[in-house]
Amino acid sequence: MSLPKKELFHLPEGVIYLDGNSLGPLPKGASERATHVITQEWGGELIRAWNSADWISLPRKVGDRIAPMIGAGAGTIATGDTLSIKVYQALAAALKMRPDRRVILSDAGNFPTDLYMAQGLIETLGSDYELRTPAPEDVAANITEEVAVVMLTHVDYRSGRLHDMKAITAKAQAAGAVMIWDLAHSAGALPLDLAGSNAEFAVGCTYKYLNGGPGAPAFIYARPDLVEEIEPALAGWMGHAAPFAMDPTYRPAMTTERLRVGTPPIVQLALLDAALDAWDEVDLADIRAASQALCETFIAEVEARCPMLTLASPRDADVRGSQVSFGFENGYAVVQALIDKGVIGDFRAPNIMRFGFTPLYIDNDDVVRAAEILQEVMETEFWRDEKYHQVSKVT
Amino acid sequence: MSLPKKELFHLPEGVIYLDGNSLGPLPKGASERATHVITQEWGGELIRAWNSADWISLPRKVGDRIAPMIGAGAGTIATGDTLSIKVYQALAAALKMRPDRRVILSDAGNFPTDLYMAQGLIETLGSDYELRTPAPEDVAANITEEVAVVMLTHVDYRSGRLHDMKAITAKAQAAGAVMIWDLAHSAGALPLDLAGSNAEFAVGCTYKYLNGGPGAPAFIYARPDLVEEIEPALAGWMGHAAPFAMDPTYRPAMTTERLRVGTPPIVQLALLDAALDAWDEVDLADIRAASQALCETFIAEVEARCPMLTLASPRDADVRGSQVSFGFENGYAVVQALIDKGVIGDFRAPNIMRFGFTPLYIDNDDVVRAAEILQEVMETEFWRDEKYHQVSKVT
Repeated sequence: MSLPKKELFHLPEGVIYLDGNSLGPLPKGASERATHVITQEWGGELIRAWNSADWISLPRKVGDRIAPMIGAGAGTIATGDTLSIKVYQALAAALKMRPDRRVILSDAGNFPTDLYMAQGLIETLGSDYELRTPAPEDVAANITEEVAVVMLTHVDYRSGRLHDMKAITAKAQAAGAVMIWDLAHSAGALPLDLAGSNAEFAVGCTYKYLNGGPGAPAFIYARPDLVEEIEPALAGWMGHAAPFAMDPTYRPAMTTERLRVGTPPIVQLALLDAALDAWDEVDLADIRAASQALCETFIAEVEARCPMLTLASPRDADVRGSQVSFGFENGYAVVQALIDKGVIGDFRAPNIMRFGFTPLYIDNDDVVRAAEILQEVMETEFWRDEKYHQVSKVT
Repeated sequence: MSLPKKELFHLPEGVIYLDGNSLGPLPKGASERATHVITQEWGGELIRAWNSADWISLPRKVGDRIAPMIGAGAGTIATGDTLSIKVYQALAAALKMRPDRRVILSDAGNFPTDLYMAQGLIETLGSDYELRTPAPEDVAANITEEVAVVMLTHVDYRSGRLHDMKAITAKAQAAGAVMIWDLAHSAGALPLDLAGSNAEFAVGCTYKYLNGGPGAPAFIYARPDLVEEIEPALAGWMGHAAPFAMDPTYRPAMTTERLRVGTPPIVQLALLDAALDAWDEVDLADIRAASQALCETFIAEVEARCPMLTLASPRDADVRGSQVSFGFENGYAVVQALIDKGVIGDFRAPNIMRFGFTPLYIDNDDVVRAAEILQEVMETEFWRDEKYHQVSKVT
């Protein structure tokens, strides 16, 4: 396999896109697939398309394409909803599995919505549950026998730091806790051995490295031996054993389908399905090797060119995901100035400039050029221009 | 205003579409809008489109277009997720508002997923909550001071029978209960005065009469004076007061935005936004009058032509939504045979044949022709053909 595969994507002229870790670019074929679904299936078949185009199976089919990318087996993934909803499903199910324990353990660096969903669930349960968020490096030491569930994001969204999936899962399970991994910044970024880790649950989103498009459906994995034990908190009709029997009583499907909730977003699922085509001939080990090389180049180039920036990612490539972050007090303005010059990264409060490296469509020349432009922005202080300090709704 | 407005829709040749109450047809302009969002906004702007195309405001903008159709004010509706999720949000919030009460009152005819979501919430709360489901006509008599929340679907999905929104809401509130209306089969079907009813919450879907497409986003309404009191169970980052501050603690937005959860499905929202254009020049009072006339014609024609079918909808047009149902033991096979002959209705277990009448694209000739074809199918017993008895995944 040769990388990159830029020919598989629509990439705007003059842009070096280092934000695929936030929203992947448009894969070729995706728009045509959406048009087909909209005009031929919806327009032409109308309600019949649920059967004739097999819309009803699309969530499972798409899940089965994601499964091998995260080291999971066929039939272990349900797709749909948003990552926030999938976090809630996993957390609620995990707490049910440990009725005598009251602690959810996460880390202070977890993506906010994961922490918020835990807070909302605790409020809803209205009892003495507690969310503990030690520093990421202190998580292992905080896994005690009080802990019902350990919920962590594998790759830190700001620093790119990797948790040790296998070791932490083993430690959690040795203490009797249930393990939930959020793979938002992992799926499509590096090889994963989810089944090998023995984790009970995983969740993730598909608009980042999987390039599913804005607001693409999320996914949830449940370890197959546990499925029949899961009591879905979000007991929607699509998770029923027989959705069209119109049974007044919820009876969950005997498969991972019980983690489906409502009517699936067919057009967004079709876009995601088309986006997954880009992964058909790709080996994630090759992606990982290429991504590490790109990240190493970027760190070396930026550190040589921009001494005022501080590396905010691990220096060791083996404990870093597919992104590199630098801290800078005026990071927001620098990122805006870079975008103006065609290098698209993003900013995360309070001071993190993030750059994602996705070897499907980024090569070494892009990385060197991005570092040169960053140097230019820093040295000329372009970023001091007032317009770069006006904070947008979305950062 | 003249009806129908068939020119606003792509309707396949030779089809009489009487299932817009399940999945509305493709509005003209919708596919083009999706293509624009996919190729120009996602493809061309990439992550910048959250600001440059104002994706972040799309859920609110679309909500503000739905609001007048259900008798609600601007800023009172959050869109996104599925109807099942929105039911859960409303129910969980309502129960929090009545901490000393333990009964959720619905009716036995409610759409299954509404009942399932209540069952899942009760399981999650793990306490002594109870879901009561009397027959629809007995709901009012069952509103007691034990009831925390009354959750009803306004138009019955099988029979089309209408609950009296204003009277039941008043009765619920007089007993101290919170009122939730599911408007799945009401929004776009008839004029609603949600604000005038004083109900605390309403939820609905947009792929039926609003023609938003398969898996289109759902909506939730909260009475404006209550918003700040709502503790969101599904405390996602898009409902946070400052989503991009990356605050580790959930602080809900001070507006209805607190009922947003995760990253919104931009392409499906854009399709829905385009679909709502068809409603710009339509008065729902005219829609209601035309729909009642079409339903009356269909009932008269079918009863004259098909004595073996039993009307399963209220005979009184004022307590019937925009659909007509007939009961028949072999209803499933009859519906399949009708579809084969170009008349698309649907079937709901155990024996209900449903026909939706949407005056935007159905006229009196369509209705008479559909009744003629139904007569032909019944008299010739086409439906006895074995192929019409093979049950599809989706009915």
